[in-house]
Amino acid sequence: MTGNVENFDRWIRSEFADLNTVLENAYFQRSDRADVTAVGAAEKGQLRAAGTAHIVELLREGNTDEGFDAGFDLLGNVGLFMAACARHGIADQNAKDGDMPEASGLALQLGASLGVTPRFATSHLTTHNRAIDGRYKSFTTLRDDYLFTDYNTRGILGYKRAADALLRILPLGITHPVAADLLAAARDALKYVVQSNETLFTELDTDRFFYSVRPYFKPHRVGQHSYRGANAGDFAGINVIDMLLGLCRADHAYYSQLLVDKFLYMMPEDQSILRDCMRRRSLMDEFLCLPDSAWHDTHCRDNLALFLEVCDLHGQTATQHHNQLVTKFIEQPAVHIDDKHQENLTASGPPLEVLMRALARLRDLRSAADRDDIPSRYHDIVKLRAKL
Amino acid sequence: MTGNVENFDRWIRSEFADLNTVLENAYFQRSDRADVTAVGAAEKGQLRAAGTAHIVELLREGNTDEGFDAGFDLLGNVGLFMAACARHGIADQNAKDGDMPEASGLALQLGASLGVTPRFATSHLTTHNRAIDGRYKSFTTLRDDYLFTDYNTRGILGYKRAADALLRILPLGITHPVAADLLAAARDALKYVVQSNETLFTELDTDRFFYSVRPYFKPHRVGQHSYRGANAGDFAGINVIDMLLGLCRADHAYYSQLLVDKFLYMMPEDQSILRDCMRRRSLMDEFLCLPDSAWHDTHCRDNLALFLEVCDLHGQTATQHHNQLVTKFIEQPAVHIDDKHQENLTASGPPLEVLMRALARLRDLRSAADRDDIPSRYHDIVKLRAKL
Amino acid sequence: MTGNVENFDRWIRSEFADLNTVLENAYFQRSDRADVTAVGAAEKGQLRAAGTAHIVELLREGNTDEGFDAGFDLLGNVGLFMAACARHGIADQNAKDGDMPEASGLALQLGASLGVTPRFATSHLTTHNRAIDGRYKSFTTLRDDYLFTDYNTRGILGYKRAADALLRILPLGITHPVAADLLAAARDALKYVVQSNETLFTELDTDRFFYSVRPYFKPHRVGQHSYRGANAGDFAGINVIDMLLGLCRADHAYYSQLLVDKFLYMMPEDQSILRDCMRRRSLMDEFLCLPDSAWHDTHCRDNLALFLEVCDLHGQTATQHHNQLVTKFIEQPAVHIDDKHQENLTASGPPLEVLMRALARLRDLRSAADRDDIPSRYHDIVKLRAKL
Amino acid sequence: MTGNVENFDRWIRSEFADLNTVLENAYFQRSDRADVTAVGAAEKGQLRAAGTAHIVELLREGNTDEGFDAGFDLLGNVGLFMAACARHGIADQNAKDGDMPEASGLALQLGASLGVTPRFATSHLTTHNRAIDGRYKSFTTLRDDYLFTDYNTRGILGYKRAADALLRILPLGITHPVAADLLAAARDALKYVVQSNETLFTELDTDRFFYSVRPYFKPHRVGQHSYRGANAGDFAGINVIDMLLGLCRADHAYYSQLLVDKFLYMMPEDQSILRDCMRRRSLMDEFLCLPDSAWHDTHCRDNLALFLEVCDLHGQTATQHHNQLVTKFIEQPAVHIDDKHQENLTASGPPLEVLMRALARLRDLRSAADRDDIPSRYHDIVKLRAKL
Ligand code: HEM
Ligand code: HEM
Repeated sequence: MTGNVENFDRWIRSEFADLNTVLENAYFQRSDRADVTAVGAAEKGQLRAAGTAHIVELLREGNTDEGFDAGFDLLGNVGLFMAACARHGIADQNAKDGDMPEASGLALQLGASLGVTPRFATSHLTTHNRAIDGRYKSFTTLRDDYLFTDYNTRGILGYKRAADALLRILPLGITHPVAADLLAAARDALKYVVQSNETLFTELDTDRFFYSVRPYFKPHRVGQHSYRGANAGDFAGINVIDMLLGLCRADHAYYSQLLVDKFLYMMPEDQSILRDCMRRRSLMDEFLCLPDSAWHDTHCRDNLALFLEVCDLHGQTATQHHNQLVTKFIEQPAVHIDDKHQENLTASGPPLEVLMRALARLRDLRSAADRDDIPSRYHDIVKLRAKL
Repeated sequence: MTGNVENFDRWIRSEFADLNTVLENAYFQRSDRADVTAVGAAEKGQLRAAGTAHIVELLREGNTDEGFDAGFDLLGNVGLFMAACARHGIADQNAKDGDMPEASGLALQLGASLGVTPRFATSHLTTHNRAIDGRYKSFTTLRDDYLFTDYNTRGILGYKRAADALLRILPLGITHPVAADLLAAARDALKYVVQSNETLFTELDTDRFFYSVRPYFKPHRVGQHSYRGANAGDFAGINVIDMLLGLCRADHAYYSQLLVDKFLYMMPEDQSILRDCMRRRSLMDEFLCLPDSAWHDTHCRDNLALFLEVCDLHGQTATQHHNQLVTKFIEQPAVHIDDKHQENLTASGPPLEVLMRALARLRDLRSAADRDDIPSRYHDIVKLRAKL
Repeated sequence: MTGNVENFDRWIRSEFADLNTVLENAYFQRSDRADVTAVGAAEKGQLRAAGTAHIVELLREGNTDEGFDAGFDLLGNVGLFMAACARHGIADQNAKDGDMPEASGLALQLGASLGVTPRFATSHLTTHNRAIDGRYKSFTTLRDDYLFTDYNTRGILGYKRAADALLRILPLGITHPVAADLLAAARDALKYVVQSNETLFTELDTDRFFYSVRPYFKPHRVGQHSYRGANAGDFAGINVIDMLLGLCRADHAYYSQLLVDKFLYMMPEDQSILRDCMRRRSLMDEFLCLPDSAWHDTHCRDNLALFLEVCDLHGQTATQHHNQLVTKFIEQPAVHIDDKHQENLTASGPPLEVLMRALARLRDLRSAADRDDIPSRYHDIVKLRAKL
Repeated sequence: MTGNVENFDRWIRSEFADLNTVLENAYFQRSDRADVTAVGAAEKGQLRAAGTAHIVELLREGNTDEGFDAGFDLLGNVGLFMAACARHGIADQNAKDGDMPEASGLALQLGASLGVTPRFATSHLTTHNRAIDGRYKSFTTLRDDYLFTDYNTRGILGYKRAADALLRILPLGITHPVAADLLAAARDALKYVVQSNETLFTELDTDRFFYSVRPYFKPHRVGQHSYRGANAGDFAGINVIDMLLGLCRADHAYYSQLLVDKFLYMMPEDQSILRDCMRRRSLMDEFLCLPDSAWHDTHCRDNLALFLEVCDLHGQTATQHHNQLVTKFIEQPAVHIDDKHQENLTASGPPLEVLMRALARLRDLRSAADRDDIPSRYHDIVKLRAKL
């Protein structure tokens, strides 16, 4: 790390988070908590000026090429700064370069050279967020900001663990005796996700999350384009599970569109895991193709039982996400906010009800729900269950 | 290649090109050559139906994973088909999935799994367009269609050759005796580009190109998004030359924006060449940093002389491109066409005069023109020239 | 898979295993079980002729390039065949190309194009051994052959799971609250290895393993060189754990020599994981560098407690491997065999007592034993334990 | 670059080369020029002590991970030092770790983490040898040392340029009109190699090369193993040309053995180019498979004429290499040296006449010579020539 990179990082970990916290507390005390105008002019000015000064220094120094990890970390810092300016309404989203030419310039160069979106991504806050003396980077120092990040991180790591196990079944085949151990590992990892989601559901404060954390995750502009916000799904594992279990399919336009839109929000390593996975045959299809004779073997039925348990758990995490997390922390509080704030509620941009429908569709695919309007595997799961 | 893939390829190489040719000839005979409505209903119907039938077959068969090359080739075929439908106005660009759900579905899956834009790219027609018995794939069988492709291919290959040579100088340093050989190789390659551009300028028929070839290169929709058209610059080499010579800089927002917008239009290999190149120091900066003592060495001055010659030639190809090719084959004929066709003249989408300004800026950067409103290296080139 | 590849695979899964089984049973009944001469001439001849015929077919067909997975699988089949011929003494190890020119030719081409050793590797039998109707490939159909493979596979997968978890701590840092979850995942994975080793120790029949399974894992010749045998350690995970925990160090010649000798025995993906890992700072060193203040945080002490538990378990698996598995299944039975068979007892080639010393050294590094003649981390572990 | 890395590099570029030069001059003046004992004890001691001191510093500092380029450069410096010690007889090749434990340790770690042989390779001296103020790294400052490196570098770069052009024909097919331009580029690049070899043949002083340069290129030991010396063929391009032209074949054991033995002596990028190339169909085979009808097209015959010219030139460079360079600079002077120096004359280790036979075989394959004892394409070339 060069001195300038280090200074900027130190600033993000201290003054930046403090200023955001002061501002959030000010907004939260207002009658219209969603209104960010008219308070905190001094803090806003200080935030913008200090961040820009750091970035100007970095641009002057030039590209110092310290490898992927260092570049990705720096992009995260620039991205957190830009997202905060957008959240506080101090970066005119209609102006050239989103009103932040220096930050846009640096973010574009970094994003392009790293092969990712030129903005902060989920991994910057979760799986690739280094803690120093126990403290990682965050927008604010609010309890619910940390809580949200902690459990997003846990959820992501749990899904990754499950994906690892499923990927390792591919070269063994689903009748291999050791496939049972891998299915069990996937099952345990998904149980950990369920548990983690449960805690998040219970512990997170709805209003604090809705008014003081969520707004940092909206789309904002970098250079000429607006980029959708980061969400906890921007990693390969969740889709690896979808596709390897066979619950979702890469050759269905709806699902591949979702993948296309997500690639550059993932780290390069995740991009290539996902790409590779798109060309694999799902475990469900492997089970469905087994000859009748195969089912005499108890191994095979044991593996199937475990497979179905893994499918159930995957559906369960998706149902939790939709019916508990999204409903409680976004849909319900959104009812109460003023019409003028209704646009821009979501990380990806579309109106809330459109997003809710899309998420419900995903939930139903993952649960193999009995729906005919989407390519749910309901009937295939029924057929397999009959083999037990 | 599976049978279905092969059948589709054969169709693209025969009936598809024939139908497009018939249609182009029909349009060309009309008083308003830019008007594609009201003629050729039968051919249009046949084109769309036959192509869709092939794609439905491919989707039924499922992803057969024959490796990158096969997938990329297939994406090219789907992409040529979609571009032709858009060109003939038989794919409603405002409808869901651009009115082509099957083709969109296949293109999205292929693009996502290959790591490229889900449409045909320049390489599909040029550097990665396999000739069978001397004939490669093309939209039509018109002389000017082949001419355009032949000289695009030559230009691209020439730039790539120059880029290869410059990249090999990096580990040697610009004072290395053998750097002279590499600079000479770059020079010769750029001369080849100049020569090739010259022939294209002289040989290509303006009207035929403008009315019957260019329209296939416009933006069109795949799934939810519209993707800009392919252009001959969608490969890494040209930007490698820009940046290694030092004439353009990745840390300037204008230029990195251009790179960001272009990544997925390039093949993965080119993407990584370009990424790697973005973190290198330019040869110009190396020359500028040499200690005074270095200039006593004749090697060093010889290398500089060659370097400046390469810069000149690079500027010359850019000037040719702008002042000859774009002006003659797009800007001038555009004056004559009806106002109602003015939108959608360009491959990237923006109005023609915006595009012309952007291209002029690039030309002036590449020629190190004496302009203060853009980060031209004019003064640095003057400084270096004085060392000779 | 082409027809020839499929035929060969079917043969390996049937006649090949049957012939080996017949031969093993014949040897096992002799007074000198280690003597493979003078019995089974017919089976040996049939084995060699049939395998060679398949390979000649494959060479005639030429390289059909079906991607890495298919090539790697085919190399495994050629490799199993060559190892079996060597084991039965029907491939003269001193002759040109190890007396098997066709098999050598195919193996060399495959190994070179895949980037791995031109012989069967552990992954061919364990992590990348596809089961068809519950049956994976094996040399023989003996119970102890399957048992050995099953538990090698489990051990490897357990180590890989632990390595995954440790690698994911790197970007978070060891004071991150979620690092605890990852350390716990590593701990659970190592407990699974302990459990799996325990079962192997209890269940495996010493004599059957020693006389009928082990001999397939000796060095043999391919082309001009002899390649050491496969062993269950030929994957990256075990060394990733060694180095990330800090118990072994890549800059110590003894350990990096071991890594150098092992690279081409691992799959390319594992090679790059291991390479990347060699440049990382170990978790132990991270803990040792924490400022005193950091220890006031309970998170930090909790993470340390978990880290030390993981170290203990890693030492425990190494101790099991040495004190139980190697001792019981190799060292002890070796005492009883005739002097003339003493050479060539080990997979890597050196005399047994040299190998035992090397393995003991590894065990002691992994257990951070109190030894001064090797770079054991004993004192550092003591220092850390005092922080709890 | 850390300070220690820089210091070591500065030492290699100055004192190291000076000491070697003094020693070479001393040996050259003796009656038995091949005898390196009994002179220069002071310089030898100084060389070894100073180099070791640098390496000890580097080991103390630990792995500083500055990316591939920096690591590869450092490995080169360690490697030059070890080769020089071996050359001067001050590193006992029979002792543990070749009598150089520290250098071995560092070299092994670097080689393993970079994926290359733990010794200096050709690229360290040629294509990746940075010149500072016109001067690149070399063993000595003798005119013939520079001359040898200059023309090795040129030869390698010429072959690479030819290989680039041939690789770019693959996706176009050999009947593509632009394939002619690429074949012409390959032809010009090979002419450059011919020219460069010619100059080397004329200019290089036989005795100086034989006695004072060549000896640095012998096998020496690193850690437990001895590694063959570097040679100018350790890059992918030459074999890419061999295989794409179709003159040599990867499925012939002799040739794939040669490739296997060479992989780790090449840079990782070259390794993957070569791997990829092994699975391609050669241009010669493409021509041989054309239907008769294809030959009516003049393009096709023109391309064939160019192809045959490229084959001729490739044969010509190989013939030059063997009949001029190897014969004049190694075989002939070797006649005159004392029997006691006969072993260890070659870079790869085997006795000179074995090596000469192997090189003659390569020459004859590359010239498609009329020999039946090797898989020469003589008859296929004759068949194709008849098509013109
Ligand atoms: C307060 C808690 C959470 C809320 C309110 C929430 C809300 C959302 C919303 C609104 C989206 C759609 C984003 C958009 O397109 O605009 C989304 C996507 C996603 N979230 Fe969450 N989320 C929460 C926690 C989590 C956790 C803990 C995980 C576990 C990893 C997770 C995994 C995902 C995934 C995978 C997606 C992508 C869509 C999909 O594949 O399902 N979320 N989330
Ligand atoms: C019957 C059971 C086993 C026996 C007799 C045995 C024996 C050996 C021997 C003799 C070696 C050294 C090979 C050589 O260099 O010649 C070795 C290496 C190794 N084995 Fe085992 N092994 C057994 C099971 C396992 C299992 C279940 C694992 C778990 C993954 C394992 C992991 C390793 C590893 C990692 C190495 C490489 C050296 C090291 O890093 O420790 N082995 N084994």
